[in-house]
Amino acid sequence: MCTTCGCSDPSKTHDSRLIEVEKNLLEKNDRYAEKNRKRLVDSNTLSLNLVSSPGSGKTSLLTSTIERLHKELRIAVIEGDQQTDHDTQRILKSGAKAIQINTGKGCHLDAHAVGHALDQFNLSEQDIIFIENVGNLVCPAAFDLGEKAKVVILSVTEGEDKPLKYPDMFSASALMLINKSDLLPYVDFDVQKSIEYAQRINPEIEAITLSAKTGEGMAQWTSWLKHHASNK
Amino acid sequence: MCTTCGCSDPSKTHDSRLIEVEKNLLEKNDRYAEKNRKRLVDSNTLSLNLVSSPGSGKTSLLTSTIERLHKELRIAVIEGDQQTDHDTQRILKSGAKAIQINTGKGCHLDAHAVGHALDQFNLSEQDIIFIENVGNLVCPAAFDLGEKAKVVILSVTEGEDKPLKYPDMFSASALMLINKSDLLPYVDFDVQKSIEYAQRINPEIEAITLSAKTGEGMAQWTSWLKHHASNK
Repeated sequence: MCTTCGCSDPSKTHDSRLIEVEKNLLEKNDRYAEKNRKRLVDSNTLSLNLVSSPGSGKTSLLTSTIERLHKELRIAVIEGDQQTDHDTQRILKSGAKAIQINTGKGCHLDAHAVGHALDQFNLSEQDIIFIENVGNLVCPAAFDLGEKAKVVILSVTEGEDKPLKYPDMFSASALMLINKSDLLPYVDFDVQKSIEYAQRINPEIEAITLSAKTGEGMAQWTSWLKHHASNK
Repeated sequence: MCTTCGCSDPSKTHDSRLIEVEKNLLEKNDRYAEKNRKRLVDSNTLSLNLVSSPGSGKTSLLTSTIERLHKELRIAVIEGDQQTDHDTQRILKSGAKAIQINTGKGCHLDAHAVGHALDQFNLSEQDIIFIENVGNLVCPAAFDLGEKAKVVILSVTEGEDKPLKYPDMFSASALMLINKSDLLPYVDFDVQKSIEYAQRINPEIEAITLSAKTGEGMAQWTSWLKHHASNK
């Protein structure tokens, strides 16, 4: 018997009521997600849920992407953060429409809040909606927002082992963007290994190495976007 | 009325039962945390809960710290990760004792699991126990593990605005380690601004800039540890 709690099995879950409430929460989220998905499909809008650690460079990647594509595609952004509207201000400067969701204590966006953000766009006028989730490699994996696909961004400063340590996120994503390739000369990061690890978790995942700063790989990413925006 | 859910107030929380269960969960965690704290205080062991984004360099920082201090202080590590025991293997190679906790789908360590890990050490033989939490700048802020203090690690690759965007974590921490200072020449990161932002959230927070790779600032960090290990 353990000295902390007196239980005989440390791996035993101690609160079945919590599991039930979590299950209900996810089911409710999934119902909102299906409503969002139907609206996005009906309006022929490609929606991508961008997920990553804090500081992987999602917003810089988005502003650089918008600058490259704004003459060809109509792009809008839903920005998720615990606090501040810094990222929304950066997106607005790049010329795209943007809506901020502050989650407060929350660690991820949910489909209900995203539905309210979608209300604020005329979806039939948008080719792509990016949803920039709260920086967190764990919790956003479990919450479908109604998006077409999740795109996980991994900065080369984070180490190539992250797909193995946070498998749910890489399992849930269709594409991995290996960002900040301009820093590769200064860090220990093996690009091939990171792709091998991600594909060990998710054999279907695609990968593009790029740098929003130098522009390396950005053409491949914008081609990927144009292809999926015209084959929704 | 909104088109997504029919509610009149989008900011309204829709599930009071969830709030009640979360409150119970945190209260239960706090009871385990108090047990852990008593054991650690009684055994005169300094305990530090290391929190950060994924890939901020916590494990490299720990192995470098252990190499510098192992002749003076007896150090043990509790390693938290969703999956893998890679970090525990790295710590064991550095000569310290280490216990792995895999959280599975969980996004943070909790005091119950940490209590079971503490069972596996002879606490009276440890001067410092580091608890390396799951890489996540949100959820670990809410869970007291019974530690003396939280230490938040911010890599210079993540951007200096993180204290404003993830205020709960910086509010809960006694010390901010600004890591990977060797990369400062290659990234846009303003050290003074990051400290100013952290102290705007938490006026008491201390800050040390360092690099586990080059050794810069490590003497200041090990002095901080020695001071707190002898003034527990």
